[in-house]
Amino acid sequence: MPVPEPEKPTVILTHPMLERMGATLEAAGYHAARLWVLGEDERQAARALVHAGEVQLSPDLLMSLPKLGLIANVSVGYDGVDVAWCRAHGIEVTHARGLNAEDVADHAIGLLVASWRSIVVGDAMVRDGRWAASERLGVRPSLGGRKVGIVGLGAIGVAVARRAEALRMVPAWWGPTPKPDAPWPRAESLLALAADSDVLVVACRAEAANRGLISQAVIEAVGPKGLIVNVARGSLIDERALIAALKDGRLGRAALDVFDVEPTPPARWADVPNTLLTPHVAGSTTDVIPLMVGQALDNLRLFLAGEPVASPVAGA
Amino acid sequence: MPVPEPEKPTVILTHPMLERMGATLEAAGYHAARLWVLGEDERQAARALVHAGEVQLSPDLLMSLPKLGLIANVSVGYDGVDVAWCRAHGIEVTHARGLNAEDVADHAIGLLVASWRSIVVGDAMVRDGRWAASERLGVRPSLGGRKVGIVGLGAIGVAVARRAEALRMVPAWWGPTPKPDAPWPRAESLLALAADSDVLVVACRAEAANRGLISQAVIEAVGPKGLIVNVARGSLIDERALIAALKDGRLGRAALDVFDVEPTPPARWADVPNTLLTPHVAGSTTDVIPLMVGQALDNLRLFLAGEPVASPVAGA
Repeated sequence: MPVPEPEKPTVILTHPMLERMGATLEAAGYHAARLWVLGEDERQAARALVHAGEVQLSPDLLMSLPKLGLIANVSVGYDGVDVAWCRAHGIEVTHARGLNAEDVADHAIGLLVASWRSIVVGDAMVRDGRWAASERLGVRPSLGGRKVGIVGLGAIGVAVARRAEALRMVPAWWGPTPKPDAPWPRAESLLALAADSDVLVVACRAEAANRGLISQAVIEAVGPKGLIVNVARGSLIDERALIAALKDGRLGRAALDVFDVEPTPPARWADVPNTLLTPHVAGSTTDVIPLMVGQALDNLRLFLAGEPVASPVAGA
Repeated sequence: MPVPEPEKPTVILTHPMLERMGATLEAAGYHAARLWVLGEDERQAARALVHAGEVQLSPDLLMSLPKLGLIANVSVGYDGVDVAWCRAHGIEVTHARGLNAEDVADHAIGLLVASWRSIVVGDAMVRDGRWAASERLGVRPSLGGRKVGIVGLGAIGVAVARRAEALRMVPAWWGPTPKPDAPWPRAESLLALAADSDVLVVACRAEAANRGLISQAVIEAVGPKGLIVNVARGSLIDERALIAALKDGRLGRAALDVFDVEPTPPARWADVPNTLLTPHVAGSTTDVIPLMVGQALDNLRLFLAGEPVASPVAGA
């Protein structure tokens, strides 16, 4: 059982996917504990969690850590953290901010073009020997002039819109708050945006209140020729309705980097046509990950020094 | 054996992939013959070929058609046609011009992002059940700030550069002719461009003189971390050298829409890593194909009326 050294503040990594941060924390002078092999001394000593925001943190867990004062998300999203509960219990929550929006938008555009222009289907056709004069890949519409509806015009939404314009697409958007300075029109409602879009890109923040925002009605409004791209969070889409609509052709295509449960079970997608699926990597690049880790370390240092953290989460 | 009606000019479709144009030609008042089931009367009567420019046309064939005066390519490229020989024998050659550069550039960007960000590999990983905390997709560098070298700054090259800029990439280019008005720097040589590029996009016209332009030396200059995208013609790349370089890691990745032989044999790519392959579809969309067909019909009409054609090929 690892024993924390008293002079080193104990910080808990909450998920094996963060394992590589262990050495970074130790090098920065912390004792790095692992939640999945946590010792009782570590539990008593822990001052902070280093967390991947999409993973659920239960109040039971948080209440079992008597000295916990900070949850430092290495991610932008923090939908697995009940921020209101944390603040009510004196626990600060920070996240990565303003660092990976452009990379997420790059990935969104990759998913959009690869799905719309049947690039993955084409790749399979070449490799299967089905490329022949008699069986050519179904010809697809141009992207030029097509309407892209962006759900959530934050940093990612803006970055997607600028890229889509370079593809000659016509952006519009919807979000709960009007933005008078936005250079693209805001739809009257999400449903109106979906109905008027060839491609709907989900790029908003996930919260308890907008779970299933992309409902069956929204999905059907995008329609049989339409494409839905999601680089935000799986919880934002009614995934069961999405799958049903893809299966019977009420929705044309879906390109998803995020899922209701992650990793998503492969069997869930085995007989769902016209999908392009990536394993939640839109925001992770070798350029940005060190910056996100650095921001988490900054927040940790500031918190333990009793200073205001650098990037607290908004709201709540 | 189909017999041409004397009052209808006979036009030969040269390849089964053009079969669908038969009805279009008949509706426009022509007798549509098929080269692959050509009757002797049709051979004697044929005034024009409707052709897919990447398919080789032999002088023997052309000399066997006594009344041939026009080869109307439905495609932009016409590398299968010996234009100098045709002109010397009084045969005009036309092609599609200025119609699909933007669609080709869209596809190039789709290939670029999908390859760079491992979207197809990620899709396979999700479906194979290999997405787990312990085996995450290899994290990739951001596209932001990476250098894209464009070979050939024609309409397609310009359209690729504009899109790459929206992805925060830094374009440079090389072509045999300086373009003082180009907003991006021209490299001193193709080799210098390749050496200074993270991604090399081949977007130039294919001619007999530039066969194998992307040589082993150019491929190695792009290097182990680099990506080559080809949306122009397979003949422009030394495909054997490309495959060897991918196999032993001297080149990082390749995303190809065009091949030395089309359809490319699947066995050729079975053990070549880090490739993304599409079946020559970059320039074909439902929006653009009717325009390209219309341009070929225009050229046909003008030629048979004894007027100058609308879009003769350049040079020769």
